Amino acid sequence: MPSKRIVVIGGSAAGPKAAARAKRMNQDAEVVLIQRAPELSMASCAYPYYIKGEVKERNLLLSTPTGVVRDPGYFGGSKGVTAYVKTEVEAVDRKAKKIKARNLDDNAPLEFDYDKLILCTGARPRMPPIPGSDLKGITPLHALKDADYLAALRENPDVQRVAIIGGGLIGIETCEALKHIGKHVTVVEMLPQILVFLDWEFAKLLENHVRSSGVDVILENGVSSFLGKDGAVSGVKLNNGTEIPCDLAVVSIGVAPNVDLAKDAGLAIGASGGIEVNAHMRTSDPDIYAAGDCTEKVNRITGKKCLAPYGDIANLEGRVAGENAAIGDTAEFPGVVHSGICKVFDFAAGSTGLSERLARQEGYDVLTAVNASPDKPGFMGAKMVFSKIVVDKDTRRVLGFQCVGPGNVNRELSEAAAAVNMGAKLDDFVNMDLPYAPPFSLALDHIIATAHIAQNKLRGLMDGVSASYTLEASRKDAPPYLLDVRSPQEYEEMRLGIGETLIPLGKLRDRLGELPQDKDAEIICWCKISMRGYEAARVLEAHGWTNVKVMEGGVMAWPYPREK
Amino acid sequence: MPSKRIVVIGGSAAGPKAAARAKRMNQDAEVVLIQRAPELSMASCAYPYYIKGEVKERNLLLSTPTGVVRDPGYFGGSKGVTAYVKTEVEAVDRKAKKIKARNLDDNAPLEFDYDKLILCTGARPRMPPIPGSDLKGITPLHALKDADYLAALRENPDVQRVAIIGGGLIGIETCEALKHIGKHVTVVEMLPQILVFLDWEFAKLLENHVRSSGVDVILENGVSSFLGKDGAVSGVKLNNGTEIPCDLAVVSIGVAPNVDLAKDAGLAIGASGGIEVNAHMRTSDPDIYAAGDCTEKVNRITGKKCLAPYGDIANLEGRVAGENAAIGDTAEFPGVVHSGICKVFDFAAGSTGLSERLARQEGYDVLTAVNASPDKPGFMGAKMVFSKIVVDKDTRRVLGFQCVGPGNVNRELSEAAAAVNMGAKLDDFVNMDLPYAPPFSLALDHIIATAHIAQNKLRGLMDGVSASYTLEASRKDAPPYLLDVRSPQEYEEMRLGIGETLIPLGKLRDRLGELPQDKDAEIICWCKISMRGYEAARVLEAHGWTNVKVMEGGVMAWPYPREK
Repeated sequence: MPSKRIVVIGGSAAGPKAAARAKRMNQDAEVVLIQRAPELSMASCAYPYYIKGEVKERNLLLSTPTGVVRDPGYFGGSKGVTAYVKTEVEAVDRKAKKIKARNLDDNAPLEFDYDKLILCTGARPRMPPIPGSDLKGITPLHALKDADYLAALRENPDVQRVAIIGGGLIGIETCEALKHIGKHVTVVEMLPQILVFLDWEFAKLLENHVRSSGVDVILENGVSSFLGKDGAVSGVKLNNGTEIPCDLAVVSIGVAPNVDLAKDAGLAIGASGGIEVNAHMRTSDPDIYAAGDCTEKVNRITGKKCLAPYGDIANLEGRVAGENAAIGDTAEFPGVVHSGICKVFDFAAGSTGLSERLARQEGYDVLTAVNASPDKPGFMGAKMVFSKIVVDKDTRRVLGFQCVGPGNVNRELSEAAAAVNMGAKLDDFVNMDLPYAPPFSLALDHIIATAHIAQNKLRGLMDGVSASYTLEASRKDAPPYLLDVRSPQEYEEMRLGIGETLIPLGKLRDRLGELPQDKDAEIICWCKISMRGYEAARVLEAHGWTNVKVMEGGVMAWPYPREK
Repeated sequence: MPSKRIVVIGGSAAGPKAAARAKRMNQDAEVVLIQRAPELSMASCAYPYYIKGEVKERNLLLSTPTGVVRDPGYFGGSKGVTAYVKTEVEAVDRKAKKIKARNLDDNAPLEFDYDKLILCTGARPRMPPIPGSDLKGITPLHALKDADYLAALRENPDVQRVAIIGGGLIGIETCEALKHIGKHVTVVEMLPQILVFLDWEFAKLLENHVRSSGVDVILENGVSSFLGKDGAVSGVKLNNGTEIPCDLAVVSIGVAPNVDLAKDAGLAIGASGGIEVNAHMRTSDPDIYAAGDCTEKVNRITGKKCLAPYGDIANLEGRVAGENAAIGDTAEFPGVVHSGICKVFDFAAGSTGLSERLARQEGYDVLTAVNASPDKPGFMGAKMVFSKIVVDKDTRRVLGFQCVGPGNVNRELSEAAAAVNMGAKLDDFVNMDLPYAPPFSLALDHIIATAHIAQNKLRGLMDGVSASYTLEASRKDAPPYLLDVRSPQEYEEMRLGIGETLIPLGKLRDRLGELPQDKDAEIICWCKISMRGYEAARVLEAHGWTNVKVMEGGVMAWPYPREK
């Protein structure tokens, strides 16, 4: 193997992976890793759990599974990689194949030659360009120092009220952490929903859960300015004029790829704002690779370029870039399907592929199905899982799958994600042979049941409608006939109260006379999770009713206030 | 839809599903469900949890999620299906399209005409043809009455010692249940391992866990006879002459398809012993379908016919058979990949696809890789997961994946199973975009890391060997150089003690002089989980050693006794 010098800029996720892989692939190479922060290889996705106190020691965020801190000594000894921390790279001279850097402690200039360069410069948090942004007490949660700052709130009774600007993944995880340590938290989101990777009704279920966990949520309202007192933040002023007092504000409105170095060096930048790379993670310069949050990725479903600033993807890309820099372009990264999951108090929420909203934006002719069901048999201590499948009617490909709830979202979403990675069609989901035993799942796995509903809809066996369709219909002057087919006891315990009639499924065949005798009248059926609702619709259709719909997900997936 | 009469024989899993689906697809059809047992639609996979007392009430095994017992009244009212219980079908007259049955309470004969018939006659437990089999206190765990009998042991202090004949899935689940209620349990298995869906070393990890949970395990020893006293079992005599005293014996040596009716009616029976069906679940008679444990299935990996008596498969097949009987052959069942999972005390164990042993039997040129790693970051309360991937070297297809351990086997195995269902190749596993957040997984998901090891092996970057290879090699007259590269502290706490030398990875580059100077000498490296072991091997190879191996899974996956 020819000896060469490989320089990696960035030491958080993609960088250390790239450096270690490069050295393993070519032990004759000299591999240098340059990091601006004082730490290397930080478990940044775990910062909310560090703030919360669940990660007991700060060093755990920086350590190998056996407890060794991943510092330059570790990288040198165990990985054969020379690591520099507190070192900022200022310029890449592509002609001379040289890097100019600076030690942040003493400002001493440094120079590195490279044969191959790997840019892993990550992303930086977006900050809103509004008045008051420079007040004290306004922070993103991005660097470890931000996490340190927020973790210190555990011991700081002066900060009681926290405003979180942005209800995305990091905003919501941070909200849980700060609520857990006793702060009063208000989440402010400009969009009509939190967690935009979910469709509205699922996000609403999460929002309800966040609210019932004691957090205030304000939607469809941006922040117009930060208010201050003695140089520190004292509140946020919303677009509608409302002022929310706070002692601290966390800004979590997303990240942007950090491409300054790449841009200055004249590398091609994609329309998404990330560094352009090919499948080998090579940039427009054949001697420079890039990996992680700073790069543009391919969405494997749409084929379009996109950003995807996730730690797992950074690791996979770093591995590919490291290998190719070390031994030539042997490895390829196929792109992403946007799989993600997060914990939200006692719920989990996640998604893979496209949401219905995105799929429609992309122009797909979309069919969806919602399934609400326990994650295992009731007698095994089941909890509910809600899922939604998004199918392209033309190709029958599963474009996306989202899953939320207190139950085992982790299993159901992960297996759906594996299938979506493989380009699965609806028909592949329908008869999957998945591992079953009562402690782990239902006999008909949740994702299979979701696919069965979609299949029934696609074949015209079921006309499924959403909760929001049903609510809107119920408010019309001439509302449809609304039919709840649960038992009287269930109805007594919990009901929507939007004008529905109760006829238990078991009695339906005998009580058809009570239904609208106009066989073309619109009827919407449901039950607890709409299995019985579907059964009822089949019965009514067999008796001549022509416009029978099923409200998918039933009472359990109803995101609005209920009468009871 | 033409009116017709559909008769379903068998009311456990496939039968009720087939009947309900048939009625939903064709409300004009008359659907009759005939069941020999007094109960319908029993959650039979949960019997061990009923015996254990985890399922609090017997009726829960027979109820819908909302607590309605699935009796004939329920099937009539909610499903529109006429169900008969305690009714045994004695003959099928295919010419006359008639069924002869008998009520088991009063012996009254019954007759049913059918247009389409669906056989869901299930399986029956195998019993060993040995002396003493008719003694009292010998039972399978198959019917609900068997579960009732074993559940009653909770209140029966006279039964203290239980022998379980057969260490398969049901034997081991029953062993956990009976141990849990305070019995002394001995598992007797004829083969050299329990849980034959696993390869030997993984089964050994489970066996160690079963033993450490207080259960005796006897391997490679069949039962030659049951011993009795006053007509009741008092012990089992093993093939090697040993006598094991017991107050009760559970026989769990597998099941055989129950095909008597089909055979008598002249339907084709496959070489596997199951009823022959095509992809539409239709038998050799165009008016007769079959589904569930009584049928022969297609193994989607080998393409060969097989049996697969699992509750989830029965449900899927029942759905297909019900639809086709109702509206003609529209639905297809693609076959199985043998996904299964079970709880074993504090471990879970499961498999999808082929084990290494089966893959080699089938003639594949096999490459495997073992991965031992935590299921999430250590600071989030991680537990270990052990997995093994089986890859066909010719096509790179993933033939199988097995997974065991105290960690989240459920997620890892389920996503691997989804991929194996989709015919995934090793390369598909390598760059999967799976949902990651610290509460749910590692940044590099466990199945991806397993695939990376396999990829490294396939490319010759790593020569991985098993624990059993290493143990054998260590016992040779001229053993290889055995190299543990963990830290001194780890070595002090736990070590194999098979003649290994400790050189921590971080010191290895400086201490190469201590290694055999014959560069062709065999060296076997390992660490806790063999990530560092692999790193060490790469270092040694770069320094000229030509025969360096890595013991996969490291100290954690070592199934033999350790020095420490």
